[in-house]
Amino acid sequence: MEILFTFVPKEEMQQQIITEFPDADFHFFYKDKSKLPTADILVTYGEDLDEEAIAQAQNLKWIMVFSAGVEKMPHEAIAARGITVSNVRGIHKTPMGESVLGHLLALKRSLPDIYKNQQNHKWERQFRSTELRGSTALILGPGAIGAEVGRLLQAFGVITIGCNRSGNQAEYMNEMISFDGLLAKLPEADMVISILPSTSDTKYLLGLEHFQAMKQDAIFMNFGRGDLVKEEVLIEAMQNKMISYAVLDVFVQEPLPEEHVFWSLDNIVISPHVSGKSEKYLERAMEIFLPNLKKWLSGENEPTNLVNMEKGY
Amino acid sequence: MEILFTFVPKEEMQQQIITEFPDADFHFFYKDKSKLPTADILVTYGEDLDEEAIAQAQNLKWIMVFSAGVEKMPHEAIAARGITVSNVRGIHKTPMGESVLGHLLALKRSLPDIYKNQQNHKWERQFRSTELRGSTALILGPGAIGAEVGRLLQAFGVITIGCNRSGNQAEYMNEMISFDGLLAKLPEADMVISILPSTSDTKYLLGLEHFQAMKQDAIFMNFGRGDLVKEEVLIEAMQNKMISYAVLDVFVQEPLPEEHVFWSLDNIVISPHVSGKSEKYLERAMEIFLPNLKKWLSGENEPTNLVNMEKGY
Repeated sequence: MEILFTFVPKEEMQQQIITEFPDADFHFFYKDKSKLPTADILVTYGEDLDEEAIAQAQNLKWIMVFSAGVEKMPHEAIAARGITVSNVRGIHKTPMGESVLGHLLALKRSLPDIYKNQQNHKWERQFRSTELRGSTALILGPGAIGAEVGRLLQAFGVITIGCNRSGNQAEYMNEMISFDGLLAKLPEADMVISILPSTSDTKYLLGLEHFQAMKQDAIFMNFGRGDLVKEEVLIEAMQNKMISYAVLDVFVQEPLPEEHVFWSLDNIVISPHVSGKSEKYLERAMEIFLPNLKKWLSGENEPTNLVNMEKGY
Repeated sequence: MEILFTFVPKEEMQQQIITEFPDADFHFFYKDKSKLPTADILVTYGEDLDEEAIAQAQNLKWIMVFSAGVEKMPHEAIAARGITVSNVRGIHKTPMGESVLGHLLALKRSLPDIYKNQQNHKWERQFRSTELRGSTALILGPGAIGAEVGRLLQAFGVITIGCNRSGNQAEYMNEMISFDGLLAKLPEADMVISILPSTSDTKYLLGLEHFQAMKQDAIFMNFGRGDLVKEEVLIEAMQNKMISYAVLDVFVQEPLPEEHVFWSLDNIVISPHVSGKSEKYLERAMEIFLPNLKKWLSGENEPTNLVNMEKGY
């Protein structure tokens, strides 16, 4: 069995894997696809595969994605071949939950002003600091990460409203609505937090009318995918101060070009797609992959966290 | 009955109080002490009383302090006269809990770097973001605020160790130690958070040996009172990078002088004594004061949140 990693884990981690599976052949290559034709299993961050690569990988039966989003993968080519795809969803929930709460609390408790005044040695106490407690958050995409955000927000006394396609109950949500009910619910929300993946249902889900419906002091956070809202919509909403802040961790084009107008709007916070980062990331991804690999090698071909390539999540 | 406020609440709030207590005489004055000689009850932030004021206030029976710290009040003069003192402890817990978590998450999730890079339109993902989850916090002074900090930290999967004079159990602490056990416990803590009041027991409680005992990547937060540690000790600890960050909300001298070295150390965050600020502050203080005033007027002279002026808290 040949297992091709399209990235190179630390030497120590490579050794651990090789030792644990003495009968498998592991290849750890960055940007080198020479082993594609013989690979049975591919381990990737999901950003380096195209139709040609799938065609070359004629033995490929399982793609293990060390990420949560699969929108950069050639869906049709993979689905047509019946290749199993699974990911590491769930492992982002701790760092992302902490990042979301960090950004919210920073804005509520005036941290950007505090940091700025320190640069000028300025003792200034006239902030309009507010509180999370008693506010309402609307969470777009209450999956594993959204539920963790909901759990933490509830600990701070925040009311959570989950919003997904079906409106079916999700964890740590005081109330659930479906995408159809979103526009009508927005006026209640002090925070609108998206962790939605990019799918045909979520692309451009938010239009200008959604920002118009939000409270003027609402905070919008996009920690899902950049195409949830067209850039020109977001620019118009923020330039006209329809809401108080937008915190963006994801963008249509990444890296965000240096000349992009987002950088200089003082009511936008640019987080360069780092909210899921953690020193524990690879270790946690391996904790998902290795037990599944063990099962796969023993003939059990249904890894956890299966991705439906037709739906896109 | 004459009730003197040494600050001026909003007109609307004044009217509400007067309407609720039609038989009492209220005076709302800022820095005008002409009504001191006839006042039965004084409502103050606790920073505008000296021995002379207490001597003048010959009818005074109850001082209601709209703050938690009483260290700027003339303790002996008040104790000698047997004047009842009560405060609003507990109302700071929500804004302070949110501020403490906000600062911690901001540092763990690299927010100061994210903000700085945005100023330079710089897409930079090479942060060493870490997580709160799995870390250990040592909380000096696990009272109402400390317990709220403990509760929130536990929601993030942090182990909490409370430390007070007695070592007696406090809420939301996984473990308790007394001041005597502090030095030996410090090497376990990733965060050391003080919300201690200023008393004879807490003054200069931390010396250089305490910073030497902390982990090199520990975060120290002083959200209690500035005299917990001598400034020269803190400067030596931070200049020598004995720990990674100090977040200071309280100072020996406030406002912190413009030329103070604290301002320019890049491992110190200066929060200008604003962690307890909230738009709901006065409203919550009134929710403590008014029911107690009602009882007082009916002859029940034991308000909640009594302060022992001999102990100082």
